[in-house]
Amino acid sequence: MASAPERGSSAPPATAAELGLMQGSPPDPSRLVTVAGWQEGPWNRWAFQHVSELVPCAVVPRGPGHVFPLLSEPEELGSTPLDGVRCADTLDDFLLESYTDGFLVLRGGTILYERYENGMGPASRHVLMSVSKSLCGVLAGGFVESGALDPDATVATYVPELWDSAYGDATISQLLDMTVSLEFNEDYADPDSEVQAQDRVAGWRPRRLEDPETSYDFLRSLRRKDEHGRAFQYCSATTDVLAWVLERVTGRRYPEVLADQLWSRIGAEHDAFVTVDRAGFAFANGGVCASLRDLARLGHLMLRGGSAEAHRVCSPQWAERVRTGSDPGLMAGSDFARAYPEGSYRCQWWNTGGEASAFYAVGIFGQFIWVDPGADVVIVKLSSLPKALDPVVTRDHHRAFRSVAAALA
Amino acid sequence: MASAPERGSSAPPATAAELGLMQGSPPDPSRLVTVAGWQEGPWNRWAFQHVSELVPCAVVPRGPGHVFPLLSEPEELGSTPLDGVRCADTLDDFLLESYTDGFLVLRGGTILYERYENGMGPASRHVLMSVSKSLCGVLAGGFVESGALDPDATVATYVPELWDSAYGDATISQLLDMTVSLEFNEDYADPDSEVQAQDRVAGWRPRRLEDPETSYDFLRSLRRKDEHGRAFQYCSATTDVLAWVLERVTGRRYPEVLADQLWSRIGAEHDAFVTVDRAGFAFANGGVCASLRDLARLGHLMLRGGSAEAHRVCSPQWAERVRTGSDPGLMAGSDFARAYPEGSYRCQWWNTGGEASAFYAVGIFGQFIWVDPGADVVIVKLSSLPKALDPVVTRDHHRAFRSVAAALA
Repeated sequence: MASAPERGSSAPPATAAELGLMQGSPPDPSRLVTVAGWQEGPWNRWAFQHVSELVPCAVVPRGPGHVFPLLSEPEELGSTPLDGVRCADTLDDFLLESYTDGFLVLRGGTILYERYENGMGPASRHVLMSVSKSLCGVLAGGFVESGALDPDATVATYVPELWDSAYGDATISQLLDMTVSLEFNEDYADPDSEVQAQDRVAGWRPRRLEDPETSYDFLRSLRRKDEHGRAFQYCSATTDVLAWVLERVTGRRYPEVLADQLWSRIGAEHDAFVTVDRAGFAFANGGVCASLRDLARLGHLMLRGGSAEAHRVCSPQWAERVRTGSDPGLMAGSDFARAYPEGSYRCQWWNTGGEASAFYAVGIFGQFIWVDPGADVVIVKLSSLPKALDPVVTRDHHRAFRSVAAALA
Repeated sequence: MASAPERGSSAPPATAAELGLMQGSPPDPSRLVTVAGWQEGPWNRWAFQHVSELVPCAVVPRGPGHVFPLLSEPEELGSTPLDGVRCADTLDDFLLESYTDGFLVLRGGTILYERYENGMGPASRHVLMSVSKSLCGVLAGGFVESGALDPDATVATYVPELWDSAYGDATISQLLDMTVSLEFNEDYADPDSEVQAQDRVAGWRPRRLEDPETSYDFLRSLRRKDEHGRAFQYCSATTDVLAWVLERVTGRRYPEVLADQLWSRIGAEHDAFVTVDRAGFAFANGGVCASLRDLARLGHLMLRGGSAEAHRVCSPQWAERVRTGSDPGLMAGSDFARAYPEGSYRCQWWNTGGEASAFYAVGIFGQFIWVDPGADVVIVKLSSLPKALDPVVTRDHHRAFRSVAAALA
């Protein structure tokens, strides 16, 4: 990988076009985005809207149904003052500073604010990173509701090959709430971490010779640590195991399940994509790519208890689980618990708990679906931040979303 | 690559689902479709509708415009008797025998017959193979019309790096009509052929160590044979050079040019895709994937002289060039000339010449847009035939299309 193009530290973040990424025929090698470095900044300024050009993707069709109409009544939200945000005083300043690609505020199904930057547009499909997990959680709800998936059954009931892995005796509920205990280093910056190995097997980074051939093999190789169900352990592999279970429950591939049970039901405007590995296994934990408004539709459906208009993604009971969250005690000792002492993680969604409780989907490098039931507001932000995780930046995002919701409440 | 699943020789072609291709979690290794063998049968039964899962693809957005409405007045064409077709007496028998994935007959903008097989549906994007070339030819027409592209200028005028390659002193017209003379083995079945090397560089086959890094490098490496302009030489690389020229004319990437100048103008229902190599260069000669009806729209626009309703793809003059063809003398000695003594190749479209002259786009393994101006008919067929080229099968297709057009004339 060539060194990163330079930019002045005081200027707002440069766009992919300003950086010259993938421009020229051929692009200059110093501006070429490759599978080796696309996730990190500044390469992700281009890559996050072009994932299918770097990693093979399955199409997740929107289906033949009607588009869920979103009214638009623009409000002057750009000057909304932000409370306690380090880098900006107003929403517009914050969006500029925080590597925004797309940003949308929806109240009661009406778009109040919609903004595209860095070459993104309404039809652009942007990678969701771990927001993808929350889609998998909603999907699972439908199968629990129909009785096809028993939340108390073990993973090995559905995927016998996993019996001697970390997951064999974990329950479906433990998958959903991320309380499976396993040996897994989720440090995105550590080349020897399991999470980077998982990336390599999924085609998200160049392979090493010793890597397992497929994600299925990778998931079988993971080992249990402590007793399951005792504590929250955020782990991307856990969502992929859930996706594998859904494949076994349906006898279909995950991209098809996602299309039939979710994407064709939300009134999506655009097909989504999901990256696939050499065995065609979808990267359910992070590989979905979707348009900004379609994510707003999903958030709105969750806010409305799982259904609205002619569209339905899960039962009211499942939406209520997501809205109310889980046992905060499971999060003890985590950074998240320090920020949200009453917060939790349930059904692959985060929940702040406490006063003005919000639930949300979040992915590295700045992807959010933020749902505030009290304010009847959904906020979607898609970004290409330079670092995967930065606690201060994360906190700023939460505060910005809360400021916007408060201004609208 | 595992050995091909067996099927009885007298049964109709098995579908991807019947073959079990990419079924199971994980798929059995004997049913796994990989980049190593996806083009050949039976793997292509699955692969041709899932190219983006095997080769990275750029999205070619349909844009925000209105869909070109196609009326539907189904007629009983399935029993149409076919004249001189070896394998079938009626259209339906022929479609069954000829590995059809999608088939559509359009007369005067109205769908008379539309059929999907082998898991394909109206939203499926199917690889076009060399039908992609004809899209590039239409695109080029717009730039000739605007004056941005001079048909008499040399390739090196636009792409100086190609000056010492086969293409340096070839003219744009010679690219368009495939009369550039170069050392190029277009034998799809020969691993040492240039066309397979081109596939490898494009990501369509596993790379060899000695392969050029990018398609740009590959195109520069090609060497001239005889004088240009004297004879037709069908060569996939020639279309890719035309695409490179269009990138230089516009300063944009080919997928963007294709979207802005063509795909967003035909009233497409669906985004198209096009495969890209490591440098992001699109495989203009064969890598476009599109839906059946969108191809019918393109064919109809060409039939209507380049525009219809609010849609326009090229000038009447350019459409007329395609419709009337070129000098049949350039084809002397070719198999094509034996079938069509008055036939020619112009602006990246084939032309039968003679009585009831038709023009058409064709790709290996059975892809066709067949336009019969006399009958006011467009026929689109997308297939996954087991062999890239088979003269008897090709002849059967032409005769079947002519029989249908004659029945409707």
